Amino acid sequence: MNVLPEVLDRIDRDLDTSLERLFDFLRIQSISTDPAYAEQCRAAAEHVSRDLASLGFAAEVRPTGGHPVVVAKTADANGASSPGPHVLFYGHYDVQPVDPVELWDSPPFAPRIETLPDGRKIIVARGACDDKGQVMTFVEACRAWKAVTGKLPLPITMMIEGEEECGSKHLFGFVREHAGEFKLDLALVCDTGMWNAETPSITTSLRGLVYEEVRLTCADRDLHSGLFGGAAQNPIRILSKILAGLHDDNGRVTLPGFYDGVAELPSDIKADLKSLQLTPEQFLGQVGLKVPAGEKDRMLIEQISTRPTAEINGIIGGYTGEGAKTVIPGQAMAKVSFRLVGAQDPEKIRQAFRTFVQENLPVDCRAEFGNFAGSSAIQVSYDNPALAKARAALGEEWGKKAVTVGSGGSIPIVGDFKSVLGMDTLLVGFALDDDRVHSPNEKYDLRCFHKGIRSWVRILAALAEQPRH
Amino acid sequence: MNVLPEVLDRIDRDLDTSLERLFDFLRIQSISTDPAYAEQCRAAAEHVSRDLASLGFAAEVRPTGGHPVVVAKTADANGASSPGPHVLFYGHYDVQPVDPVELWDSPPFAPRIETLPDGRKIIVARGACDDKGQVMTFVEACRAWKAVTGKLPLPITMMIEGEEECGSKHLFGFVREHAGEFKLDLALVCDTGMWNAETPSITTSLRGLVYEEVRLTCADRDLHSGLFGGAAQNPIRILSKILAGLHDDNGRVTLPGFYDGVAELPSDIKADLKSLQLTPEQFLGQVGLKVPAGEKDRMLIEQISTRPTAEINGIIGGYTGEGAKTVIPGQAMAKVSFRLVGAQDPEKIRQAFRTFVQENLPVDCRAEFGNFAGSSAIQVSYDNPALAKARAALGEEWGKKAVTVGSGGSIPIVGDFKSVLGMDTLLVGFALDDDRVHSPNEKYDLRCFHKGIRSWVRILAALAEQPRH
Repeated sequence: MNVLPEVLDRIDRDLDTSLERLFDFLRIQSISTDPAYAEQCRAAAEHVSRDLASLGFAAEVRPTGGHPVVVAKTADANGASSPGPHVLFYGHYDVQPVDPVELWDSPPFAPRIETLPDGRKIIVARGACDDKGQVMTFVEACRAWKAVTGKLPLPITMMIEGEEECGSKHLFGFVREHAGEFKLDLALVCDTGMWNAETPSITTSLRGLVYEEVRLTCADRDLHSGLFGGAAQNPIRILSKILAGLHDDNGRVTLPGFYDGVAELPSDIKADLKSLQLTPEQFLGQVGLKVPAGEKDRMLIEQISTRPTAEINGIIGGYTGEGAKTVIPGQAMAKVSFRLVGAQDPEKIRQAFRTFVQENLPVDCRAEFGNFAGSSAIQVSYDNPALAKARAALGEEWGKKAVTVGSGGSIPIVGDFKSVLGMDTLLVGFALDDDRVHSPNEKYDLRCFHKGIRSWVRILAALAEQPRH
Repeated sequence: MNVLPEVLDRIDRDLDTSLERLFDFLRIQSISTDPAYAEQCRAAAEHVSRDLASLGFAAEVRPTGGHPVVVAKTADANGASSPGPHVLFYGHYDVQPVDPVELWDSPPFAPRIETLPDGRKIIVARGACDDKGQVMTFVEACRAWKAVTGKLPLPITMMIEGEEECGSKHLFGFVREHAGEFKLDLALVCDTGMWNAETPSITTSLRGLVYEEVRLTCADRDLHSGLFGGAAQNPIRILSKILAGLHDDNGRVTLPGFYDGVAELPSDIKADLKSLQLTPEQFLGQVGLKVPAGEKDRMLIEQISTRPTAEINGIIGGYTGEGAKTVIPGQAMAKVSFRLVGAQDPEKIRQAFRTFVQENLPVDCRAEFGNFAGSSAIQVSYDNPALAKARAALGEEWGKKAVTVGSGGSIPIVGDFKSVLGMDTLLVGFALDDDRVHSPNEKYDLRCFHKGIRSWVRILAALAEQPRH
């Protein structure tokens, strides 16, 4: 029996109550990075837990070293007789701070519906999109299915954490410690965006990250450039030379072995990317730029998603105030990060960078390093059958083929889903470029919320048809 | 009649009262950069003016846009019948701030004599050396001469300013406006140091200075390096490349035309410099360095005094706080300065730098510049007869040949003495490397003060013998 039409119909009829439930969630001020909001974070976790329990999940608010994690399992989650693959849904109940609050047109935790001049209805609140609105698309999909059929289409474990906006630092240990509970068949995440308002997309890759700080020291104090200029090593000059040497004239990173593990895209995927026709005007024009600055022989969309990069994120040394000071500083510091793709090894790249720095140091200069991140890239296997199922389901809902894209950014825990739990992750989300995520007046299109719920129902149905593999 | 022995004898006998007069001067808290001390600066000017009037000078405290300048002229300064060249003595009555005052062993404006473990007696106070003590060596030389002979050996105009420690900014206009009064035969300055405690020296060159700030702008805001990394121009990367390109592998500055006007030293001067045997251990060892970092084919002493340099004095861009922030900044800024020698043209070099930057900017990056200094190098003609006379006089006083050295630093107004007034300047001073100028516990060796007075008497006598040229 195909229950899908009935479930979709239920979603349409229940949209107002779905929205009320989302608003209740949005009213909780669960700002994770500010200790003053710890109680509100706990309240958000308990809210989610209660809601999931009402859907028949065995739900718990479980402690970590920081804000708690909500873990909820369907009744058949531990059973072997389930008809479909057992999925892990990951999301987060915490939100970004609201500063500068004076730039909000209405209080950030008083959600409201606004109609834009073009007729679009939007949900405005902190977390409307990231990630409360997106999480609720999945929860409401489950609710509709349960309401119609009395059960869920496949075994589901939910993991809704409270520290994504401050680095998920306690979740890594939690997942490792309880790996047995979470080693399932497939992870689902709703924390990414659509290609545009008409085109759904699945994020099939997230770039990894190596973040290094390098501090050079020459003289044991700041020197007068009149007295010592010309004879004393200048750490800014040395640092500039090192940083300038990280790229060649074609924009390729020069570190030996940097491209080890970077494969060429399958030709069909490359053709898909090309067909998106992302132009510099569209992408760079919004920030006042015109010409892609990356590897010269790559499309813009490759540069920002499927190719690795090296970026200098910060630099400081010497006198940086008003006017002139004739100083040769004793120290200079830079922060450098690498976005990784494919099978690039963060540890090898960290080491290659440090070796490169050391090999370019003259006498009288020493380097110290600090490391702030090291995560591998995530790549969903293009031949994972779940990917094709989800693409088809999204295509049916939106009336347009879903594109697969790489995201330049990272969702920290997703790396561990692969490396620790051995699962692929399907990243499906309904955010739009103008959602002002992390900024004042964050919003989520009502249509994205509504069709997002419908999309998940279709995806769950498609996955449930799939025999366990 | 040779009055010299009698004048020198007078100096020795009067040393205690000379010291009392210096102490009175040192007690005045004439910190020029801090408006709270404006009255004390005025008091110092009046103190100097009264003292010079007591020696028969026609002395005035003359206003500027800032702290006043003391101008004092001997009675015959306007007459044509004077026996020797008419000299302009320049010094300054202002001092540096005393912060951090808690590092002083005694109050900075309560001068005292201290005996060091090696037996040296030192005068400790802010300004003991820079420049009150040095100015008073000249004033006391005049006093002794006047006491013995009833007049001065040659026509003298004194110009003692109150803004040297904050850039002499009002003196430039003052000198231009009153150029007729100050266009004399030779300038004398006592604001430099000895080669070492045993070896007097004349500073025959001061390097000029061009100080530029360059600010690069790419995107119109800071960008997320995950989203834009690989496609957006990074101003730190561009700036690093530009700065790295300022020197070649041999340490030479690469700006086209940079070395125009840089002459090779006369071989005897080069031999003199070589004979000083300045070692990296002596010079760089004190700040924890070992190997001269300048032009590879030049002696260390050339690198720091007779050769031009390019230095990066400061750089900033992006995130420089603790930990990691994955930003591609919209802007980056550096401060770059050039020390000039010989006939290098500050304006041409400023322009060459700006052109170099502009030529190395990719699309999507623009540069803005700020200029904070542009002064030519000062070079006393080696064939100026006054130089030989002064060297001989110093040699007699110290029992050791006076060396001529180039100073890496600058005294702002001295450039104008040449360019505006057409005069050479003899820079003779008695500071030692351990005088802690600008630092807590500034001192001046009592022996330097005493023999400094004697040195000036010998120099004035030698210059007076010289027919006007």
